[in-house]
Amino acid sequence: MAGHFVTFELATEPVQVQTGTLLTEAAHQAGIDLLQPCGGQGRCGRCAIQVTNGAVRQRSKLRLSQEDLEQGYALACQAVVEGDVSVYVPPQESLERRLTTDLTVAEVAVPSGYNAASDQPVRRIALTLTPPSMDDQTDDWSRLQTVLRKETGISELLVSLSLLRKIGSVLRQGEWQVTAVLDSMGNCPSCPARLIDVLPGHLSSDTPLWGAAIDIGTTTVSVWLVDLLTGQVKQQVAEYNRQIRRGEDVISRIIYASKNGGDSEMRDLVLASINDLLKRACQREKANQRKIVRTTISGNSIMMHLLLGIPAESIRRSPFVTAVNHIPVLNAREIGLDIHPEATVDCLPGVASYVGADISAGVLSSGMDDSEMVSLFMDIGTNGETALGSREWLVTCACSAGPAFEGAGVQHGMRATRGAIEEVWINGETFEPTYRAIGDAPPRGFCGSGLISLLAEMFLTGIVDKGGNFNTTLPTDRIRQGEHGWEYVVVWGDGNSQLSTITITHVDVDNLIRAKAAIYAGFTVLADSVGLPLEAVEQVLIGGAFGKYINVEKAVEIGLLPDMPWDNFHFLGNTSVLGAYYALLDQKLRDRIKDIASRMTYIELSADNSFFEAFTSALFLPHTDLSHFPSVSKTLRIPKIP
Amino acid sequence: MAGHFVTFELATEPVQVQTGTLLTEAAHQAGIDLLQPCGGQGRCGRCAIQVTNGAVRQRSKLRLSQEDLEQGYALACQAVVEGDVSVYVPPQESLERRLTTDLTVAEVAVPSGYNAASDQPVRRIALTLTPPSMDDQTDDWSRLQTVLRKETGISELLVSLSLLRKIGSVLRQGEWQVTAVLDSMGNCPSCPARLIDVLPGHLSSDTPLWGAAIDIGTTTVSVWLVDLLTGQVKQQVAEYNRQIRRGEDVISRIIYASKNGGDSEMRDLVLASINDLLKRACQREKANQRKIVRTTISGNSIMMHLLLGIPAESIRRSPFVTAVNHIPVLNAREIGLDIHPEATVDCLPGVASYVGADISAGVLSSGMDDSEMVSLFMDIGTNGETALGSREWLVTCACSAGPAFEGAGVQHGMRATRGAIEEVWINGETFEPTYRAIGDAPPRGFCGSGLISLLAEMFLTGIVDKGGNFNTTLPTDRIRQGEHGWEYVVVWGDGNSQLSTITITHVDVDNLIRAKAAIYAGFTVLADSVGLPLEAVEQVLIGGAFGKYINVEKAVEIGLLPDMPWDNFHFLGNTSVLGAYYALLDQKLRDRIKDIASRMTYIELSADNSFFEAFTSALFLPHTDLSHFPSVSKTLRIPKIP
Repeated sequence: MAGHFVTFELATEPVQVQTGTLLTEAAHQAGIDLLQPCGGQGRCGRCAIQVTNGAVRQRSKLRLSQEDLEQGYALACQAVVEGDVSVYVPPQESLERRLTTDLTVAEVAVPSGYNAASDQPVRRIALTLTPPSMDDQTDDWSRLQTVLRKETGISELLVSLSLLRKIGSVLRQGEWQVTAVLDSMGNCPSCPARLIDVLPGHLSSDTPLWGAAIDIGTTTVSVWLVDLLTGQVKQQVAEYNRQIRRGEDVISRIIYASKNGGDSEMRDLVLASINDLLKRACQREKANQRKIVRTTISGNSIMMHLLLGIPAESIRRSPFVTAVNHIPVLNAREIGLDIHPEATVDCLPGVASYVGADISAGVLSSGMDDSEMVSLFMDIGTNGETALGSREWLVTCACSAGPAFEGAGVQHGMRATRGAIEEVWINGETFEPTYRAIGDAPPRGFCGSGLISLLAEMFLTGIVDKGGNFNTTLPTDRIRQGEHGWEYVVVWGDGNSQLSTITITHVDVDNLIRAKAAIYAGFTVLADSVGLPLEAVEQVLIGGAFGKYINVEKAVEIGLLPDMPWDNFHFLGNTSVLGAYYALLDQKLRDRIKDIASRMTYIELSADNSFFEAFTSALFLPHTDLSHFPSVSKTLRIPKIP
Repeated sequence: MAGHFVTFELATEPVQVQTGTLLTEAAHQAGIDLLQPCGGQGRCGRCAIQVTNGAVRQRSKLRLSQEDLEQGYALACQAVVEGDVSVYVPPQESLERRLTTDLTVAEVAVPSGYNAASDQPVRRIALTLTPPSMDDQTDDWSRLQTVLRKETGISELLVSLSLLRKIGSVLRQGEWQVTAVLDSMGNCPSCPARLIDVLPGHLSSDTPLWGAAIDIGTTTVSVWLVDLLTGQVKQQVAEYNRQIRRGEDVISRIIYASKNGGDSEMRDLVLASINDLLKRACQREKANQRKIVRTTISGNSIMMHLLLGIPAESIRRSPFVTAVNHIPVLNAREIGLDIHPEATVDCLPGVASYVGADISAGVLSSGMDDSEMVSLFMDIGTNGETALGSREWLVTCACSAGPAFEGAGVQHGMRATRGAIEEVWINGETFEPTYRAIGDAPPRGFCGSGLISLLAEMFLTGIVDKGGNFNTTLPTDRIRQGEHGWEYVVVWGDGNSQLSTITITHVDVDNLIRAKAAIYAGFTVLADSVGLPLEAVEQVLIGGAFGKYINVEKAVEIGLLPDMPWDNFHFLGNTSVLGAYYALLDQKLRDRIKDIASRMTYIELSADNSFFEAFTSALFLPHTDLSHFPSVSKTLRIPKIP
């Protein structure tokens, strides 16, 4: 049987294999081991490659979209070589981006009692007009308005020039039967409803009416495709915010945007992320992107400014003010979203420079603003936004924790993607660690939850003391002097590129302690500001994608979270996109976000001495004052083996 | 004294002249006789030429703008040759265009009692803001709104994204002292005021606040530059509507626009006319075009649709409906006007396909809608729009007269420019004509008033009978058989290109009679429709630029105008731009135009049998029923010399 040449673009030379060989096997021969977390069963999609020349027989196309197939993607574990082929192995990041999508899908319940007719600002109305005649020469637009008025009672409508341009032809194409799409949310609170589109003919009532809830995270952009009639989330997609290449955190992005042309590049990058996600969601749903007629957008204030091309410079300079917190209703055309050009784009309101729409929306989806319980809402991230309150009152702050828990500012930190160590256990006798990496892949670094877990274990096993200092006398070679001072080795490298040595340094520990101290100080100051002890907090609601993976026990042990019964902690996932989804569906919920943004009292910590004091007290593991951490004290009292 | 070579680009060879020779004289030697209606005194500007090489000494630069001088224009009658020069003689049309500008300037009185503070929708407000601080981190936009609310009581404002983008830098540039420009006319009647601009610092109160009143005539586009604070018209400019090259009348333009890409070409052409006029007006006034913050636009329905890129096809097809009569308030950016991008653009409302904003605005500026007298308002042009009524009631129609009175559809017809015969007298004994041509230039054809005058004279002298038939037995060689049947020769050509033979043919006479019959039938049907005899009309108000030059006596003699005392006729000039000017200044007058457009009852003549009867009866000179023309009957009874 003749051999076939398989060329891998990453490899130096083609390899020759027999007919019937799988691409994964051919790749292995070429020195490339493709990931097969599912065991080569074609289930996980991680071994996707692109056939650039020749063809392979695909035993299974599961996990590949039509778009993927058109672009030549195949699952290497399912691709049988039957002739010469060239294969491109996508770099990790692009593969991750493809896959991130699938990782974020979660069941979302439609709010109970959702009724599009009464809750949804967008309406689709079938209209039958009397055709014009020599006895009735009313102009097209007045004719349409008259019938709309009869059907809906709406006496005045906003309409765009581009819509006026097509009304005449649509009326005639539909032979005076048309469907009007209008949004009762005009450009301002007192503005009349806005006509978004007029379509020829009458649509059947089960034709979906598309909307999209969008969350622009500093790290991840999420898009939910929603049928506004049923309220159902039909698709959830996400990818890294493409602005990441111009800075991991918001401050570096503001700086980049303020330089020559940086603002428009930033806009283009985040728009590319959003538009690509919208496209992907619609392709999967076989929906027409141009039929999306309403979107809500959440995100922190910096993301919102950058999206809209509004200079964000003043946000990072004292006295830290935004250009605008309550953004008027815009349309897709002026922003640059690839959906219906007249679609309503409702950017949700923020509170302050560092407490943005993501927090207003998050507080809504946490439900704390409508609860009698005193709740603490936290978004554990760079800005460490925290809100405290109940139905009666709300206070909020941002505590500038820095990006340590997002993997930045830590030598071997990384985002929570494949190969990130997310949990660590250290043997208290041998000081040998075991760990779990995301995707059960070879470890590449630590993500936030891994760092929390590692720090807690190091503290409990005495590798570091309460001040974060290394105990250099312990009988293990894992504690050693590295390039940057003392460090603890979690993973020994294998000497080649497959596995690197992964350590946590003294500097990393310091950064983590500062970060957790800032967050802890933030909510203690919030509680102080309203004269409440922390013990009065009845539930802790943790939002942000990061919040999904935290091990509460470990987080309490290092003093990041307050010491209270674990049942009081609730992990809510991406509360920002959830809030955007609620606001997309229901005008009353949208109004509630506005109300939250308006009534939340913002406490500026950088001007607050008590914050500095609280911060200093929290610069210990778990805290200077152990009385705040009774459960940790108890653990610490268990005598160690000498 | 050495001779200098003067090269005229129109001439075959250079001519040699002595130092001190005038260019007009040199041109004469070269066989080019430049027009000098003012007698070579440098007053009229008609002999302007362009020096393309070398230089001349200019004794006077009167009539030349700075822009002209920069482009090398000089008045030939004032230009002294002192060296070799090359001279370009502009073609007639471009010279006419330059001059049209000056021809339309007229004194316009500011409406008595005009008070910008109470009448003008646009306001300029000086604001002083408290700078933000750590104790007051309100966002820029809310901060601005709060102060505006205090100063004006306006609680809600519309703002564009592009303005939001610059607010932060303007506030800081002005060190928290800024000037807000806002238009209380939002995008809809119930919409809040709209912020147009925010400028750094406080402006002195005598800095003009610029607006522009624009009239898009089928033939001529007019722009008035207005200081909205004083109400004064500072500049009036006009030029041919550049769409003319794609069709003289509205129907041919609709057809052109409906073909591939024709619509955007039509937009571009009329925008080029408007933008060029705006530029010229601002250059003359040394005003910054980008500071024009409010415009009103008048014009017939077809011109309005073509400007906005709204398909106009349905206007020319039964049942003749427009896409939109009441156009929402737009801004300059979306239309493409080269003024402040956020400037309000208020397109005035029309009544029907062939009764547009020019008539609504015309009726306003005629004052008939607020008068107790029964008035007849006429725009004698292609569409023959007519309105009848008083303070109590208004009816209107368009009678499709065709373009004969605008010089089209008549063999030697032309627009009312230089060389157009505007008045004719015929000797009743010799049948020899004398005439007056515009600019006292060599005659090139007949404009509308010339045709009216000629037809009347031909009728009164018996050259044509009441049916328009030529009396071929008269003793004159001026009545002859031409290529197109019988014709009357008004001008004998001189055998070379300087002077052509100019005639009026049997077909021309028929066309003119049909045109005047349509107009006459139009207003008789209007009067009938409300049960009034024509005699009840107390005044006849004639609008349109054309209306300025009509000889009433002659127009009555051919039965174009009703036979009534000459004192009852009033010529109002361009009532359309005048109405746009009133609407620009005063919101109450703008509302009155809307009211006029809404309450005018439109009578569709093409569906009206009585129109056809009235038209048939009017197909005679002056009319089948002479009892309607007592003064003409009297003239006709004067016995003719046999």
